[in-house]
Amino acid sequence: MKLRLGIPKGSLQEATIALFLRAGLTVHTSTRSYTATTDDAEVECMLIRAQEMARYVSKGVLDAGITGMDWVVESGLEVEAVSSLNYSKQSRGNVRWVLAVPEDSPYQRAEDLAGKVIATELVNVTSRYFAARGVPVKIEFSWGATEIKPPTLADAIVEVTETGSSLRANRLRIIDEVMPSSTQLIANVSAMQDDFKRKKVENLALMLEGAIAAQGRVGLMLNVRKGDLANALAVLPALNSPTISPLNDGEWVAVNTIIEETAAWTIIPRLKAANATGIVEYPLNKVVL
Amino acid sequence: MKLRLGIPKGSLQEATIALFLRAGLTVHTSTRSYTATTDDAEVECMLIRAQEMARYVSKGVLDAGITGMDWVVESGLEVEAVSSLNYSKQSRGNVRWVLAVPEDSPYQRAEDLAGKVIATELVNVTSRYFAARGVPVKIEFSWGATEIKPPTLADAIVEVTETGSSLRANRLRIIDEVMPSSTQLIANVSAMQDDFKRKKVENLALMLEGAIAAQGRVGLMLNVRKGDLANALAVLPALNSPTISPLNDGEWVAVNTIIEETAAWTIIPRLKAANATGIVEYPLNKVVL
Amino acid sequence: MKLRLGIPKGSLQEATIALFLRAGLTVHTSTRSYTATTDDAEVECMLIRAQEMARYVSKGVLDAGITGMDWVVESGLEVEAVSSLNYSKQSRGNVRWVLAVPEDSPYQRAEDLAGKVIATELVNVTSRYFAARGVPVKIEFSWGATEIKPPTLADAIVEVTETGSSLRANRLRIIDEVMPSSTQLIANVSAMQDDFKRKKVENLALMLEGAIAAQGRVGLMLNVRKGDLANALAVLPALNSPTISPLNDGEWVAVNTIIEETAAWTIIPRLKAANATGIVEYPLNKVVL
Amino acid sequence: MKLRLGIPKGSLQEATIALFLRAGLTVHTSTRSYTATTDDAEVECMLIRAQEMARYVSKGVLDAGITGMDWVVESGLEVEAVSSLNYSKQSRGNVRWVLAVPEDSPYQRAEDLAGKVIATELVNVTSRYFAARGVPVKIEFSWGATEIKPPTLADAIVEVTETGSSLRANRLRIIDEVMPSSTQLIANVSAMQDDFKRKKVENLALMLEGAIAAQGRVGLMLNVRKGDLANALAVLPALNSPTISPLNDGEWVAVNTIIEETAAWTIIPRLKAANATGIVEYPLNKVVL
Amino acid sequence: MKLRLGIPKGSLQEATIALFLRAGLTVHTSTRSYTATTDDAEVECMLIRAQEMARYVSKGVLDAGITGMDWVVESGLEVEAVSSLNYSKQSRGNVRWVLAVPEDSPYQRAEDLAGKVIATELVNVTSRYFAARGVPVKIEFSWGATEIKPPTLADAIVEVTETGSSLRANRLRIIDEVMPSSTQLIANVSAMQDDFKRKKVENLALMLEGAIAAQGRVGLMLNVRKGDLANALAVLPALNSPTISPLNDGEWVAVNTIIEETAAWTIIPRLKAANATGIVEYPLNKVVL
Amino acid sequence: MKLRLGIPKGSLQEATIALFLRAGLTVHTSTRSYTATTDDAEVECMLIRAQEMARYVSKGVLDAGITGMDWVVESGLEVEAVSSLNYSKQSRGNVRWVLAVPEDSPYQRAEDLAGKVIATELVNVTSRYFAARGVPVKIEFSWGATEIKPPTLADAIVEVTETGSSLRANRLRIIDEVMPSSTQLIANVSAMQDDFKRKKVENLALMLEGAIAAQGRVGLMLNVRKGDLANALAVLPALNSPTISPLNDGEWVAVNTIIEETAAWTIIPRLKAANATGIVEYPLNKVVL
Repeated sequence: MKLRLGIPKGSLQEATIALFLRAGLTVHTSTRSYTATTDDAEVECMLIRAQEMARYVSKGVLDAGITGMDWVVESGLEVEAVSSLNYSKQSRGNVRWVLAVPEDSPYQRAEDLAGKVIATELVNVTSRYFAARGVPVKIEFSWGATEIKPPTLADAIVEVTETGSSLRANRLRIIDEVMPSSTQLIANVSAMQDDFKRKKVENLALMLEGAIAAQGRVGLMLNVRKGDLANALAVLPALNSPTISPLNDGEWVAVNTIIEETAAWTIIPRLKAANATGIVEYPLNKVVL
Repeated sequence: MKLRLGIPKGSLQEATIALFLRAGLTVHTSTRSYTATTDDAEVECMLIRAQEMARYVSKGVLDAGITGMDWVVESGLEVEAVSSLNYSKQSRGNVRWVLAVPEDSPYQRAEDLAGKVIATELVNVTSRYFAARGVPVKIEFSWGATEIKPPTLADAIVEVTETGSSLRANRLRIIDEVMPSSTQLIANVSAMQDDFKRKKVENLALMLEGAIAAQGRVGLMLNVRKGDLANALAVLPALNSPTISPLNDGEWVAVNTIIEETAAWTIIPRLKAANATGIVEYPLNKVVL
Repeated sequence: MKLRLGIPKGSLQEATIALFLRAGLTVHTSTRSYTATTDDAEVECMLIRAQEMARYVSKGVLDAGITGMDWVVESGLEVEAVSSLNYSKQSRGNVRWVLAVPEDSPYQRAEDLAGKVIATELVNVTSRYFAARGVPVKIEFSWGATEIKPPTLADAIVEVTETGSSLRANRLRIIDEVMPSSTQLIANVSAMQDDFKRKKVENLALMLEGAIAAQGRVGLMLNVRKGDLANALAVLPALNSPTISPLNDGEWVAVNTIIEETAAWTIIPRLKAANATGIVEYPLNKVVL
Repeated sequence: MKLRLGIPKGSLQEATIALFLRAGLTVHTSTRSYTATTDDAEVECMLIRAQEMARYVSKGVLDAGITGMDWVVESGLEVEAVSSLNYSKQSRGNVRWVLAVPEDSPYQRAEDLAGKVIATELVNVTSRYFAARGVPVKIEFSWGATEIKPPTLADAIVEVTETGSSLRANRLRIIDEVMPSSTQLIANVSAMQDDFKRKKVENLALMLEGAIAAQGRVGLMLNVRKGDLANALAVLPALNSPTISPLNDGEWVAVNTIIEETAAWTIIPRLKAANATGIVEYPLNKVVL
Repeated sequence: MKLRLGIPKGSLQEATIALFLRAGLTVHTSTRSYTATTDDAEVECMLIRAQEMARYVSKGVLDAGITGMDWVVESGLEVEAVSSLNYSKQSRGNVRWVLAVPEDSPYQRAEDLAGKVIATELVNVTSRYFAARGVPVKIEFSWGATEIKPPTLADAIVEVTETGSSLRANRLRIIDEVMPSSTQLIANVSAMQDDFKRKKVENLALMLEGAIAAQGRVGLMLNVRKGDLANALAVLPALNSPTISPLNDGEWVAVNTIIEETAAWTIIPRLKAANATGIVEYPLNKVVL
Repeated sequence: MKLRLGIPKGSLQEATIALFLRAGLTVHTSTRSYTATTDDAEVECMLIRAQEMARYVSKGVLDAGITGMDWVVESGLEVEAVSSLNYSKQSRGNVRWVLAVPEDSPYQRAEDLAGKVIATELVNVTSRYFAARGVPVKIEFSWGATEIKPPTLADAIVEVTETGSSLRANRLRIIDEVMPSSTQLIANVSAMQDDFKRKKVENLALMLEGAIAAQGRVGLMLNVRKGDLANALAVLPALNSPTISPLNDGEWVAVNTIIEETAAWTIIPRLKAANATGIVEYPLNKVVL
């Protein structure tokens, strides 16, 4: 028996396969095929565009898959959301779809766009958004580069953005958020009733989360006298409780903990000031707290 | 005094030098020279083809060298086999030389090949193999691509294989194993009588084995209540006994161990299920258990 | 408030930015600009040639900067030397400026060069050197390739060298050392009176030193019976005192320490001989002892 | 006044810009912008997806553009087709959209698919195709990888193909051609009424065709006695009439012509057999016959 | 006897060696040496910084060299300027050194800068410029990035520019041109008295000019009826007179000429309009008109 | 019917396939297969090591092949030598196998080596060489790096060399030439009796020779007055007779010829001196004189 797993083809593909590798599962793709094998004989993969993942999962062609919540909602199909995976700043991690209009246009609210042309890749979500507000608009499917269409080809757009910089560069102004979105591990509802498949999907989620948790984190070891322990612990963030173990001499203890890699920049000088010695930062592969 | 060490030129060269680096010995090669220096002033290297390594070592031009056991036996020369090194799947690690015939030929045993032409790169070993069975054959030296020679240029071949896939692709059928082989650290017999050289060769073997052992392994740290310790330990493979140390609070212990990197995929979910917390996987450079 | 920090443009630039990254500070350069941002909103950088760094720092255009002590002295300007940073063998770490003459020339001392032409990139330091000895010479600024100028374009040169190999290759003979030099973190004298800036500069020095200390070092863990502990510790270098902690069984202890990566090559075999087991070498990011 | 020209973004982009360069027009793209300048101050470009080109051209946002005829027809918009450009085997040159079904399915004609699901990227063309035959089907838009959908997600597909190899690899059988397509230079109907723009578009077409004609062709020069001229000319293909010019000695003539590069393989041996001498093949940039 | 030739090390080096190759002289450099051999046994090269070329040539260490006229004048040394070589837009071809001040400063003329600090790489030329105007200034040598110095480290700068874009980007305003400059082949005055060396230098100049002339030019062949010849010739630029030769049939002539590659874009459509046929554009290696 | 053609695998492979491409025959290799297809449906290729080519051709597994004459002679098999192809300086073009001994050894002639060990890759040729001189020696097959074997592993070697530089670098002295060698197109004797195959092989030889002849040659066009023609022609090498054609004005003639690319360096200046104008050098693809 095998778990059939969908990997998003395209911009997220490389980052997803790298994440799987860090999680402990090597995926073997081939330029000639849409299918991929893995080192776990019980898992096989298929490369499917994020936009179509929900269709493949909901119809049971795949048991589970990785895609954005936006495309799940757009599809209108039923799947189970197992885990939210925020593994890449460069890829679509936490993004939002917004309604944007030309900077110098008079439009301030969705209601101002009655009778206008709205260009978007997310046609169904956009339709529901305007229908819910009772605003009649003409929605045109856009194949991309949506942000350059106003004002000649559209009056407003519904587009995905992370920092808003591309919208600003095209002199567009955000007037509302249509929906937020993040990357998800989704599963087929029936597959999750099956013991083997549910366990496989849950273990996959655990290991992916472990690899994501290790990314951008480091281990920190240090020694401190018992009398200074409280001060040193006060410096450490409350992410998880540090492991404290006795040393042979009876006077000192060793502290071992996990911190954000970027936090080391401020924590280490403060640990030093708190009389910690032998401070060592070391790299991690996976973290399951 | 210096240890003169032979590194196999060609397909194993890059992997060997990378292994030496991981073992702690940087080798400096030059595109213009067959000799190479190292960061250990007492070790100097020479790049020699695997087929000729035994000759250089047995005649004392080199004190030790890395080559395949197949070429040692083919040479018929006397050297000391110090350590078997299985450091690269892609290179000739554990391989075997087999007698193969066309799939649709009638030959089933070596004895069926009396009077036939056998093509091989391993002429002496092949001669001894057929002589031991009293089967007269004509053995032709092959410069490569031996597997495409039957049936036009040879009736059977003796060829090296790891998975057999190249033989199958050329529609050949294995009818016997002629000899297995693996990569070896070999040494000159007299050099091993010399205290300085024997110690150098043994330390080299220890460090190479330490680097090979670290390859594909990871460190695993976790905390567990004393009451759950037995269950957590039951999950760990018997590769080596884990290091268990007390924590300050008296109720928990820390466990630190080495596991196969690929095993993490199944072990970590089971540790989590056994109530382990703070599970951290970290990378290793060398392991000497 | 921001710390304005100078990074040396050119041969040291890449190594410096890599060091900052290891220290925990990501620097974002742009091919179009001399300025660079960092992930610490309180630090901004400027890319300035090492030769001009002291001018920028002493005039307060920058609060601190990284450059060689040679160019600080050459400039004749006042700055505060905060930390000596030896982070790259390939770059100008510990170097020295020497007075060199053609191998077969009669010159043996600076005094023999009265009235002669001296080519150098370090005109002011060279002038002071000869003035201090009362030797009148003609000093010509050299744009580079100074070592090929004698004897046609100069009688002697003052040139930087690390190993002397380039001088030997051009058949030059060193007759005196003019000044040694190393890479420095320098700061503006007034900026160091400001609490915010002094603290920022000192933390920067701490983290850079921590990253440098981790470079070329590794962590070493091992277990040993209490009775063998003294022998095992005798093998370890006195770099810092190892962390020794009890194990659960009461008979063994765990030792954790930091050693030079290159020292592992000789230390691990000796630890093994001293009955240590479970010897594991692991990589480090930062070390603050 | 400027001609605004659309270049297809994506798979055809690189080949199109290379063609423009060979035609004599350098296009300067930027990774940050959808617009591009050219060395002709009267031409500016915009990078637009092939699927949307007709919309931009028909609404006058662009004066002309390069796209496939398939997407022009799919859009249902009116533009003028100026020139058919077959410049890249690897890209969509001459292709056809076909109706394909699983190899082992019972479907033989479009009519057999009544009530079935058809997946395609070309929804409008496909709708018209089935409507014209009076066959009611359910057409689903496909985001790509359409050929792997039958039989689980679709009963049949309408997909683009050049050689049919991808369809065969997915075990699909073609049962009808829906429409052929080729790359086109299209123009806005009103823009072609404007003298400046029409002339610019026509010159562009001439130069693009000249560069395409030179691609895969070579020049061939040879000398032949007058008496052998007829035989030599008989070897040359009738692509265009060769240029024949007298030589100084009165007995020989020089022949200069253009041939297909691949034809040289058979033509040159035959010219040699026809007593031609001094046969020289040379490269070409552009050919306007 | 050999001609010793200096090639500018650094930004112009690659373009210069590529030019020599197109001119017919292969230069063999080595990363280990300042000298280079050529395929002409009578020419040997030395890689010298452009700033020091005049010194090497004037002192006779080199017979000839390639450098900018700016550095020749800056050196104040006597050499013979043999040929002006404009071979690379990206490199310093035709440039000018200008006096620039901050955009929003009050300075309008050199005279306004009395008593101010001027930063420049071209100290001597700048000194003479201000001395000639009787304006006393403080000139500081700049190691680079001169354009970022005003207003903190300098009041004005003398800097090289081709298009002025870098100055504008740093908000500087040009108030005068100090000197124009172009790349030159320079020679030692005495060497030019020697027959062998003068001939070598002149042939080198001829071939370099031939290669430069071919760069950016193409050959154009076409056929035209005698009656249309005048019209066709009227289209061709007057760069050189085209070669016109009779064809065998007596009615047509062949025209062969050299044009600017960029001119083809406008010339070919006009030739076609003038009834020319068989228009073929072909690449060139060298042109000596 | 097909011509089966052997291409030498290894160091000559890339250069051979590039030559075939220039000759007009595209070869499609695959990393997975020893066979290769071509754009000529009547030619198929096999990649075979040069050492084994003669065996494949003489036994009729291949109709023709490219290899060195040395390996043909070594094999002792009968094949027909069709054409000598000197297409690559970097590859084994014109080489020679020599007998070499250590520089400081006493050996001066083959006869001095009686009873000694000779290492070589060319065992049979070497045996015949010594047998012909009646000198008994021990010949050992060498897998490579033969030049480093004397004096420890061999007393002398028979090795291939082009310039002798590798032998000198290893302090060896050449005492005799054993055999010269060059790259050959060889064919099976029976295949050359077959009309189809003989014609295919001869055309292949013609086109390969045409491509080789074009390599390193260029076309040269120039105009000259009739009165200066004799002087101009005197400058041109006698490689082939130039094509001279009348120009329209009756006073000038055009000269078109093929010269060595390296000869342009000296010829063009002399043509200019002989009053030639409009001198244009252009690239060639193939030359069949």
